[in-house]
Amino acid sequence: MTSDSTTPAAPTAGRIALVGIGPGSVQHMTQRARDAIAEADVVIGYVTYIKLVADLIEGKEIVRKSMTEELDRAVSALQAARQGKKVALISSGDAGVYGMAGPTFEVLFQAGWTPDDPVQVEIVPGASALNSCAARVGAPLTHDFCAISLSDLLTPWPTIARRLDAVAMADFVVALYNPKSGRRTRQIVEAQRLFLRHRRPDTPVAIVKSAYRRREHIVHTTLDRMADADIGMLSTVLIGNSHTFVRHGLMVTPRGYGNKYDMADGGGAIEGERPGRSLSTGLLGWLQNLHLEHAAGVDVHTLATRYGLPVDYIAATLQEPCTDTECQTSEETSA
Amino acid sequence: MTSDSTTPAAPTAGRIALVGIGPGSVQHMTQRARDAIAEADVVIGYVTYIKLVADLIEGKEIVRKSMTEELDRAVSALQAARQGKKVALISSGDAGVYGMAGPTFEVLFQAGWTPDDPVQVEIVPGASALNSCAARVGAPLTHDFCAISLSDLLTPWPTIARRLDAVAMADFVVALYNPKSGRRTRQIVEAQRLFLRHRRPDTPVAIVKSAYRRREHIVHTTLDRMADADIGMLSTVLIGNSHTFVRHGLMVTPRGYGNKYDMADGGGAIEGERPGRSLSTGLLGWLQNLHLEHAAGVDVHTLATRYGLPVDYIAATLQEPCTDTECQTSEETSA
Repeated sequence: MTSDSTTPAAPTAGRIALVGIGPGSVQHMTQRARDAIAEADVVIGYVTYIKLVADLIEGKEIVRKSMTEELDRAVSALQAARQGKKVALISSGDAGVYGMAGPTFEVLFQAGWTPDDPVQVEIVPGASALNSCAARVGAPLTHDFCAISLSDLLTPWPTIARRLDAVAMADFVVALYNPKSGRRTRQIVEAQRLFLRHRRPDTPVAIVKSAYRRREHIVHTTLDRMADADIGMLSTVLIGNSHTFVRHGLMVTPRGYGNKYDMADGGGAIEGERPGRSLSTGLLGWLQNLHLEHAAGVDVHTLATRYGLPVDYIAATLQEPCTDTECQTSEETSA
Repeated sequence: MTSDSTTPAAPTAGRIALVGIGPGSVQHMTQRARDAIAEADVVIGYVTYIKLVADLIEGKEIVRKSMTEELDRAVSALQAARQGKKVALISSGDAGVYGMAGPTFEVLFQAGWTPDDPVQVEIVPGASALNSCAARVGAPLTHDFCAISLSDLLTPWPTIARRLDAVAMADFVVALYNPKSGRRTRQIVEAQRLFLRHRRPDTPVAIVKSAYRRREHIVHTTLDRMADADIGMLSTVLIGNSHTFVRHGLMVTPRGYGNKYDMADGGGAIEGERPGRSLSTGLLGWLQNLHLEHAAGVDVHTLATRYGLPVDYIAATLQEPCTDTECQTSEETSA
């Protein structure tokens, strides 16, 4: 590869579109994704993804690559674009989420490419596996969530394990990407072990294979039985937080309306809470309360333990007086 | 609201589509999202989202709700569907990510709805703000990431703070939703404080406002200056991990190819690593090494500190002998 970054744009300057095709059904692809593929001279992708867009690529030059040839895909894309071709480099889901966008920029930078290059690059976002899989099981992602890949082909295991431990403890909803393969079978067992240190065994888990594709398969299970389920390369594992529930086969994570509104009795605000305002346990109400507890003689270490937060964070927040108007407002309403 | 779940389906049974419209540009909406809006008799949504789909809803009944009337939107949707109407309840981004899918199921369950009800419910996934914002700044989400909402309108601050602390420590890329509003200005300062306990001050941060919309605005900054930036209700804050870099104005998180391949020298595998296989520091290689270190006299506490993992997790893994074929293979290749 050579850099042509100083050459003026040829009349037929090529370009690279990094296209997220969504779950794989054409219905769930964006218009821009369809257009970027339609405009392309060359379509490059993992063989499985190429099959998913078969209807859209007739007559085009197709470059099929295997699972591990991600850098090769990016190199091929740059070579074709340097020849003046329009390239669609396709990823399932979102091109930016464990997709081709990252490796492509790494290859482009290595080749001396800059954004001023005649070869222009566009990223076309799409629904990632976590969005598509969530849509098929209910509403598990209504609160804070994480995506973690269990693949250790490029990431050391201690890094992955630390992340699993941290988010299990902090009660995130978690989507596990690449949970298992023919060779990698113990990662999901270790993930389960790390989660069970912090979470209830009956925490809801949904395992979604091939969402919106012909062989879609959904299994509802629980954290303690998760590792025994049928999980493969095309599965995404969704683990709920401590409030996630399953009702009538739907997995739902509450947003927290129950913290503010009386859901069973007409939906009015509960005592001490106001619509459109922070909770009485929100930041300012909590700070106010923290100051009061500290003034009443509760020490910083006890407060840190009480709220599950670092001692020095509690100490730092206590050093800043809570005097602004909102804080006083918050004090009034929480009275 | 009464439950009609025992009534047979009327010839004009209504339905509810929870539609994620993506970032707001019609180009980045899925075909199914467009179709669900086109098929709808009634379109319900936050006023801003209704404006984003103005071209698609001419002649339809429109129900505009304010920001905090999420439960009202769900109640209105059910009422209209009970009258036999087709309802599109629209969310920006993905309907499942801090969107209307969760509140709607909560309201439906409260009203006695079940999946056997004549009123059918469909969730139409879309690119969430984190996907769209990432696409506009480069490839920040190529590795494990989290989404955290800084809104304390429904979530107590200690819950939010614990999550910020956990993911800052575990080196996730983080997308902050609802980072700041007219009333909520200190949350982003606290988030910065929690992050700076674990992350370098020069950690790349991108603040993306109104991605793909007319007033799109992108600011690249760093963690230590993040809270001083112009941040509002329509902003998403993307914080990189310890490997994220900015080059030529593009924010990129490496996937980890440098752990396995010599990126500067033709891309061949580096010594001890094999394409398509777990890293020598992957799970099985790491377990093998852990057993060797322990056998050589390193105690469990030292190993826990060395790898940043809980003592009892290290102890539990050491109790399971590492004897399967893959583990031996891994031993050979890492020699």
